[in-house]
Amino acid sequence: MNVEIISIGTELLLGNIANTNTVFLSQKLAESGIDVYYTSVVGDNITRLNESLKRALLRSDVVITTGGLGPTVDDITTQTISKLISKRLVLNTRILKDLENYFRMRGMKVLTSSVRQAYIPEGVRHIRNKVGIAPGLIVRYKGKIIVCLPGPPRELQPMFEEKVIPYLQKRNPKRKWILRSQTIKLTGIPESVVNKSIKRILNLRPPTTVGIYCKLGEVDLRIVTKARDEKTAAASIMKVKKKIRERLKDFIFGYGNSTLEGIVGRRLDGLKKTIAIAESCTGGLLASRITDVAGSSRYFAMGIVAYSNAAKENILGVSSQTIEKYGAVSPDCALEMAQRIRLLAGSDIGVGMTGIAGPTGGTIMKPVGLVYISVVFDSRRLIREFRFKGSREEIKFQASQAALDLLRKTIR
Amino acid sequence: MNVEIISIGTELLLGNIANTNTVFLSQKLAESGIDVYYTSVVGDNITRLNESLKRALLRSDVVITTGGLGPTVDDITTQTISKLISKRLVLNTRILKDLENYFRMRGMKVLTSSVRQAYIPEGVRHIRNKVGIAPGLIVRYKGKIIVCLPGPPRELQPMFEEKVIPYLQKRNPKRKWILRSQTIKLTGIPESVVNKSIKRILNLRPPTTVGIYCKLGEVDLRIVTKARDEKTAAASIMKVKKKIRERLKDFIFGYGNSTLEGIVGRRLDGLKKTIAIAESCTGGLLASRITDVAGSSRYFAMGIVAYSNAAKENILGVSSQTIEKYGAVSPDCALEMAQRIRLLAGSDIGVGMTGIAGPTGGTIMKPVGLVYISVVFDSRRLIREFRFKGSREEIKFQASQAALDLLRKTIR
Repeated sequence: MNVEIISIGTELLLGNIANTNTVFLSQKLAESGIDVYYTSVVGDNITRLNESLKRALLRSDVVITTGGLGPTVDDITTQTISKLISKRLVLNTRILKDLENYFRMRGMKVLTSSVRQAYIPEGVRHIRNKVGIAPGLIVRYKGKIIVCLPGPPRELQPMFEEKVIPYLQKRNPKRKWILRSQTIKLTGIPESVVNKSIKRILNLRPPTTVGIYCKLGEVDLRIVTKARDEKTAAASIMKVKKKIRERLKDFIFGYGNSTLEGIVGRRLDGLKKTIAIAESCTGGLLASRITDVAGSSRYFAMGIVAYSNAAKENILGVSSQTIEKYGAVSPDCALEMAQRIRLLAGSDIGVGMTGIAGPTGGTIMKPVGLVYISVVFDSRRLIREFRFKGSREEIKFQASQAALDLLRKTIR
Repeated sequence: MNVEIISIGTELLLGNIANTNTVFLSQKLAESGIDVYYTSVVGDNITRLNESLKRALLRSDVVITTGGLGPTVDDITTQTISKLISKRLVLNTRILKDLENYFRMRGMKVLTSSVRQAYIPEGVRHIRNKVGIAPGLIVRYKGKIIVCLPGPPRELQPMFEEKVIPYLQKRNPKRKWILRSQTIKLTGIPESVVNKSIKRILNLRPPTTVGIYCKLGEVDLRIVTKARDEKTAAASIMKVKKKIRERLKDFIFGYGNSTLEGIVGRRLDGLKKTIAIAESCTGGLLASRITDVAGSSRYFAMGIVAYSNAAKENILGVSSQTIEKYGAVSPDCALEMAQRIRLLAGSDIGVGMTGIAGPTGGTIMKPVGLVYISVVFDSRRLIREFRFKGSREEIKFQASQAALDLLRKTIR
């Protein structure tokens, strides 16, 4: 079985938005061992969409379209399909019911423009949209399959994973291979050092390869293998993973979709330890990341964003002497912030962070990007100095990442 | 003149990397008034690339390919072009010289695999690559133009802007238009309501159109116009903008790249008012967004992330009676949080936020997504109730967005 993806939308041709749907669909299809030979983009133009669909149906078994299912006149997908397969549009009462429910839950009546979305070509199957309005379509036509999905990623993604992938897999018995991958996530180490330490592994040739992906404050290594069965795939991945672990163990914080805040949270939860945070330059970002984790209320006691010296002194209780003598951006102030917040919150762990996020406010001795992070836990008092580079937001993020990494290492 | 873009690379079909080249090329072509009707991706496969090129040449004046110009056997572009136009590959001594220079500057001899990159189809013009190795190609074939560019963005981008755009513009004397756009940003209003209030405007036909883009907690309207000159473009945009403003004024928070936190910050700064925040369910996100703005230290006094009831009572000083009587998630608690943090910080404005971010912790009376936001400013005490939907992170973001919007309206 081979699949072709057609994304519909003039905004994509103008480069206004990136085609993230195609990336998502391609990844999921590859993981399922389904070949994608072509992807393309066509504007909101019936003639050109029709031409693209016809061409795709000649060379591919399955054509997946994204977008063009909305309520406006620019949304041409349903109409084009109806014309292509010569089936008139008929009102689907189940879709209409879903629509009515959607609007009722929002205290509204169904918009007249949206009623149009309940009309689909006769005999065509629809996929319910649990997040938004536009349903998807599954069309069987001359031995081929056309799947139409809505454009918004948060609507398309669950529909594709829950309905379309199982539907295609059932109809793809001659599957020859599967693609499996694993991502190893590192932090606290520059890409160049990773590159050097595992140079040979990065030069591996198919069927098993390793890619390096550099993000802000994080380096990801992605092992990809093509195999005939799960067992072979798992063994190939394990072999490479072991080699990477041997060389870079200390910097690996997680695998797959794990996040640093999730890893730290799980450890805190497991140890039944609570944490409190006093942050300055990160402005609440560290607390926000920690509380992104469901269940964080069990271990997150409180946070104070002490931006001004007044807040550091009056609310947090950092001594004015410390600030006068060493400055607000100093290892001493970071430590005292960590100690004071632990005391105030009555938590097991205290974190103090102070630094200069920029773009202004730096000096020669204390440049933009200088950050001090302190963690106090039991009798331990850790203080680290960092010098980050980048924009204000990039420095904030890297500082929060470094604090989480220090926490990870401290509580392991 | 209309252009079609073909990106070459199996890694694109596997969804391993995003197709940023197509976004870049599309934007630049649109700005130059050159139409793009199709873009597509094809794997590293000679037969399929050949088929795609032939198809593209039937319907487009110019075909731009990206990728497949490297030194490995997977790089098939030059070879495919040579076959398509029936011109044999010949050594180009000027390319070879560039190659030798490139390697000499790096203290190396030319790699044998790279010598292959100095062979191009007879009679074809090449574009020098100042950043990397692979030269680009400009092929004239049966009245059409094929432009081949290397895959790495930092090589492709200067070649395209410096050489290809001028080349195409010279051959597009009948350029009739330029493309200009403006984005209007709204919040606090659902997409469906925007749709309804400006239905006619959304149905505008070219040369001036309005697109609606729904983000989390934000709806963007993008006016795009095709015009003969800057003056006409500006007038067309202004005319539509005025109409949109007439109907949706209250919900418009900014234009272009502006952010809600930036707009709120600028107003606070202008009025010389300071702000302090006590947040619960948003876990520091509101403080973090406010402090994403450079210069926010001038108006952001402090923030407290009071997650637990203990923190709300002991540190913030919310009365235990309020929490007992109404619960921590209540309008009363939100108001008291706003009042207490204003008092503690000695700021002009206080913000209190409390709610349930989920995924657990909701009840029938107080479901996940219920959030109370209070703003106190001078003698005003505002309290609003919201019911958001989505994941924990989505609820956090929408709540922070609603708080910023309430601030925006309060301090205008």
